[in-house]
Formats: sequence, structure tokens, C-alpha cells
Amino acid sequence: NKVLFLPGDGIGPDIIAQTERVLRRADESFSLGLEFDEAKVGGAAIDATGVPLPDDTMAKAREADGILLGAVGGPKWDALDMAVRPEKGLLGLRSGLGLFGNLRPAFLYPQLAEASSLKPEVVSGLDILIVRELTGGIYFGEPRGIQTREDGEREGFNTYRYSESEIRRIGRVAFESARQRNKKVCSIDKANVLEVTVLWREVMEELAKDYPDVELSHMYVDNAAMQLVRAPKQFDVIVTGNMFGDILSDEAAMLTGSIGMLPSAALNESKQGMYEPCHGSAPDIAGQDLANPLATILSGAMMLRYSLGYEQAADAIEKAVSDVLDQGLRTPDIHFEGTRKVGTNEMGEAVLAALD
Amino acid sequence: NKVLFLPGDGIGPDIIAQTERVLRRADESFSLGLEFDEAKVGGAAIDATGVPLPDDTMAKAREADGILLGAVGGPKWDALDMAVRPEKGLLGLRSGLGLFGNLRPAFLYPQLAEASSLKPEVVSGLDILIVRELTGGIYFGEPRGIQTREDGEREGFNTYRYSESEIRRIGRVAFESARQRNKKVCSIDKANVLEVTVLWREVMEELAKDYPDVELSHMYVDNAAMQLVRAPKQFDVIVTGNMFGDILSDEAAMLTGSIGMLPSAALNESKQGMYEPCHGSAPDIAGQDLANPLATILSGAMMLRYSLGYEQAADAIEKAVSDVLDQGLRTPDIHFEGTRKVGTNEMGEAVLAALD
Ligand SMILES: CC(C)[C@H](C(=O)O)[C@@H](O)C(=O)O
Ligand SMILES: CC(C)[C@H](C(=O)O)[C@@H](O)C(=O)O
Repeated sequence: NKVLFLPGDGIGPDIIAQTERVLRRADESFSLGLEFDEAKVGGAAIDATGVPLPDDTMAKAREADGILLGAVGGPKWDALDMAVRPEKGLLGLRSGLGLFGNLRPAFLYPQLAEASSLKPEVVSGLDILIVRELTGGIYFGEPRGIQTREDGEREGFNTYRYSESEIRRIGRVAFESARQRNKKVCSIDKANVLEVTVLWREVMEELAKDYPDVELSHMYVDNAAMQLVRAPKQFDVIVTGNMFGDILSDEAAMLTGSIGMLPSAALNESKQGMYEPCHGSAPDIAGQDLANPLATILSGAMMLRYSLGYEQAADAIEKAVSDVLDQGLRTPDIHFEGTRKVGTNEMGEAVLAALD
Repeated sequence: NKVLFLPGDGIGPDIIAQTERVLRRADESFSLGLEFDEAKVGGAAIDATGVPLPDDTMAKAREADGILLGAVGGPKWDALDMAVRPEKGLLGLRSGLGLFGNLRPAFLYPQLAEASSLKPEVVSGLDILIVRELTGGIYFGEPRGIQTREDGEREGFNTYRYSESEIRRIGRVAFESARQRNKKVCSIDKANVLEVTVLWREVMEELAKDYPDVELSHMYVDNAAMQLVRAPKQFDVIVTGNMFGDILSDEAAMLTGSIGMLPSAALNESKQGMYEPCHGSAPDIAGQDLANPLATILSGAMMLRYSLGYEQAADAIEKAVSDVLDQGLRTPDIHFEGTRKVGTNEMGEAVLAALD
């Protein structure tokens, strides 16, 4: 099995370095026979080659069974160059590999409840899985652009588009995931205004007939944004499109107060996957031994589980992360009184030690 | 000056009834010379005439200086019929009257801090104004619909579109509002993915040159959804498009825990306006003397201030609302221990009494 590291920018290299150590150790301990490689993406790739997603990186990504991404972007590079338009950067990787199924858990570590902005009674025990469609919707819809109209005014436009089959395949991911959890799917749309989401709702209803053991409900996106604040524990699996998923998954992640702890997966039809932390590239703290490597280490565990099929090794890594939290170790982002502040490197070492 | 009441559905009639009493009293006390009228909209209009926005209602709305809407919708009627498509229901009213400027304050009443899901130190003193563009963007963009493609698959599509002048006029509302407040505007977009919001950002930058006393910043919508949970007090005025504004204003409103307290205004170029509470029609508690009329009463005060120019009467109503909260009166939605639970009617009466 081939694993590709894409450290990217900002704290990306810091957190990937720790994750690589952990995965190499797991590889040895469990005799997984992993092969590791590395390539450039994002700003690091622009600096080296002029483009955010070099052909060489794309070729290696296609070959890999699992890809581990740090983070991309920073003030040095144009945000548009990094992401906008399907052929570029992060979105190019996602669509090029067909990674339509984005799993974004929002899980509250009991050890970190204090970090949340929410009152303990609202948030304790929080465990939501957001299933976001990742290769369609308004991110990729054509036509798109900025044009000058006949009257001389400029106008920007994008197209929000979904076909039945795109909706059906992400719906299946949500229903299958719910079967492994609390058997509830809440589909988020804006079916009182947007026709594309009227179709979304219809297809989800059809699909629900194949999963009589799972309860399907629907919620408008504005109400969902409220309910996540008011009573987030009402949700089990949330399924939604690319844009709404972007917004709601970040909101849900922040409810836990520990966005430095949350992994994510993006999978295609053959379970090849790209894994990355929920947080960004945090250029202001890059290279200073301050970043929290745990979200990326947990992304590595998700990769072992979902793309490579090494359940046992994944469990061991997740247990090791929970152990270091129990030991009271905290990077600055999750540090509070009564715990011990450690750097990126020491946190990685502690996970290694807990793995043995 | 003409005031039109549109009670609508669910608790709409309950809360409009109380607001009407309060406005009639203010009219007398301050000798405003208001003329009152009423018309049907939403489900109530469908039941009476077959359509959600009858011509007669639209004609009266055009004549009015200020419109006070209760709420529309309920399980009895199709959500699509009520809102979707510019020519219908609520969206028809908004676009028909050109009400492009939506002001949605998210304000924490100190008396109600306990109702919030957020910890007191995160939320106390919260005072954000969301300025949402209300007659453009993806809500109204053409083409839109559901079509069957050549390959037999159905596909839904909507168009997200903004022109420079649409962006500029909502931007001005935000900058002018900020001048009356803490002189900060945060513009929300997704300029790393959507071209239409690249134009949005550009126009906001241009506009900022006319307001050197106001500080402009930009934030991606996913980050904004997070920051509202993490540190909402960083915001003063938020300006954004129709769809993002729908989501973020509901999220921001819910931070206060008292969505039954929040008014809103939708204004056109000549300051004619439609005013409504932030909450919905809550059909489950309609007609049971349970609804909180304060958001609608406060919407009435906003109407006196922004569309009719009666600053003093508006102040008096707002003071009366604050007084009844000080007296410890609470409808069920904001009731907690140590306060006295009252119904819709008693709450209305208490505001009347406090007005004198
Ligand atoms: C960087 C950006 C293009 C990306 C997205 O919007 O998908 C990010 O916000 C994310 O959620 O992974
Ligand atoms: C009812 C619906 C069409 C409306 C909207 O999305 O604008 C509502 O959610 C609002 O925010 O006023």
C-alpha cells in the first residue's frame, strides 16, 4: 500500500512530520508494509514550479492508496490561484481523484470540554458526522466567471448544479455511515428557495426507501446553522452539498472548541482517499513548534481504517491520542489551566510512546 | 403615514395583534397620525384566494410607508409555493418592493444572557448588525430549474449572480450603519472559490475608499460560521449576500439564545420598509397565547425609526420592552428560573403599561 504525504504550506510540514513518525511506527509494529512518498502542493508547489498542483504531484496522487495532506495557503500566495477553479490546487486534487465523499466528524473529546464556547450541558457528548459532497455543486458548476454586460456593468456569476446520480452517491455514503452509528440522517437543503435542492430532497427521500432502518429528516440550512448552536446533540449524521457542507462542517467543528483535534476524509468510489485536518495552514505559527499535530495524526488513523483497511492499527493510534490527552499534555491551542503545555514535537513523541 | 399589517400564518396573528396595540398607543401618545390597514399573505392568503401573494396585498404594500409582517408558512402549505421563485410569497414582496437592504441585529439582552447556549464570557455584551442583500444573489438568479438531460438524468440548477451596482448599494448600507456604531465592517464571501464573490470583494474594497473612517475586513463564509461561535464579539457590522446572510444571520441570532427577541428590517432605496421578527411561524404553538410578541413589537419600533422617522416613539417602545424584561416577565421561550412566565397577551399588556 502506497501512502503519499502532501505537507503543503504553513504548519503543514510541522504536523505532517509528526504524523509520518507515527505512521512509520504503526507500519513497523503491525507489519503493514506501507510505502511512503512525498510531493508538493499549494504555495510550496507554486514557489518550486510555478503552479499549485504540478503534474508530478497529480501523478503520484493517482498512484497512492492514501494521501495525507497538511494544509495549503498563506498570505504569500493568491487565494484564487490556490483553490478557485476545478483545475487548480486543492479543488483540482479533489475532482481529479473523484473524491466526492467528504467525512467531517465533529466530536467532543471529554478531556477538552472546557475549550468549547458552549456550555457543558449543551455540548458534552457531542458526536456528529458531517457528510459533505465534495466534487460538485456550486464549487464546480459551469458557467462561471466575471463578465461585462452590455450596459457596461460588471457582473459575477456561478452555477449551483447537482444531478440525481451525484446526489444519490453521496446520500448512500450518509445512509451507510448512519447504519454504523445512531441510524439518523438529517439532510440539509434550502428547498423553499433553490430548485437544485428540491431535487436533492427528492432523491434523498427515494434513497431512504433502501434504508428502512435509518431515519431521514430534512432541515433548511438556515435552521441547521441555528440548531447547531442551540442543541447540537440532536444530530447524528448530517448530509449536504459542497457549499452548505463547507459552512456547517466548520461551524460544527468549532462547537467542540478544539478544531486542532478534528480529522477529515475525502473518498472516491474505490475508497482511495485524501485525509487532512479540519484546520487551516496557520502561517503565523508555522515552523515554531506550536501547531497541534493531533488532527493530522488522527487523519492518518482514518486513512488506515477507510482506505487501507487496517482497523487494528487505526484503533491503536486513536487510543494513543486519547492516552496523551489523559496524561494532560496539550499544545497551546487546547491548553488550559491544570494541563501541561507542550510543543508539536513533544506531542508527536508522546503519541509514539503511547503507541508502544 | 400608512402602516400595513401582514399577520400571515401560525403565531403571526398572535404577535401582530399585540404589536398593533402597542403601535396604536404610540400613535396616540405621540400624535403620529398613523393610518393602519391589514392584508393577507402566505398560507392565509392561499386559503382565502388560492395564491400566497394576492394582487390586492401587493397593491396595499406598495402604498404603505411601513409594513409589519408576522410570519409565513406551516406544514399545511407547500414551502415551495410560499417562497420559491421571485414572483411568489415572501420573495415576491421583497423583490416587488425592491427591499434590498436587510438589517438583522443580533443583540444580547443582558437580562436574558442565561438563555444562550454560549458561556457568558463569550457572549455577554454581544451586539452585531448583519446587513444582508435581500433581492439578488442565488435567490433570484436566472437560469434556474430542474431539467432532464440528454442522458435521461434529471439535474437541478440555480444561478448565483451579482452586479457591481447591486453590491455597491448594499455595501453603502453597511458602511453607513457602521458609522453609527463601532466603525467596523466585515464583508463575508467565498472569494477563494466563487468568482461572483471575487467581484463582491473588489467592489467592497473600492467602496471603502469613500469611508476612510470605517475599517473594512474580509472573511470567508466558512471561517465566519466558526468565528461566530468562537468569538462573536469581534464583529460590529457584517455585510454579505442573500444566501450567506440567511445562514449567518440565523446563526448569529441563535447565539443570543433569544431569537424570540430579535427584530429585522428590509428597506428599499426610498426607505420604505418591511419589518418582521427573526423567528418563524411556529405553527405548533399558534393561537395558544404562548408566542413571544417582543421581536415583532421591536420590529414595530424599528419601523417607526427607519421608515417613518419617529425616533422618539421608537425609543419609547424599546425602553418599554427593556422595562418589562427588568420586571422579570418572560414568555415560555425565554423563561428560566427566578422569572415570571406570562402569555402573549399579558406580555403585550405589560409593554403597553410600561409605555405610559
Ligand atoms: C480552501 C477551501 C477551498 C476549502 C473548501 O472550501 O472546500 C476549505 O475551506 C475546506 O473546507 O476544505
Ligand atoms: C422563508 C425563507 C424564504 C426566508 C429566506 O431564506 O430568506 C427566511 O429564511 C428568512 O431568512 O427570512
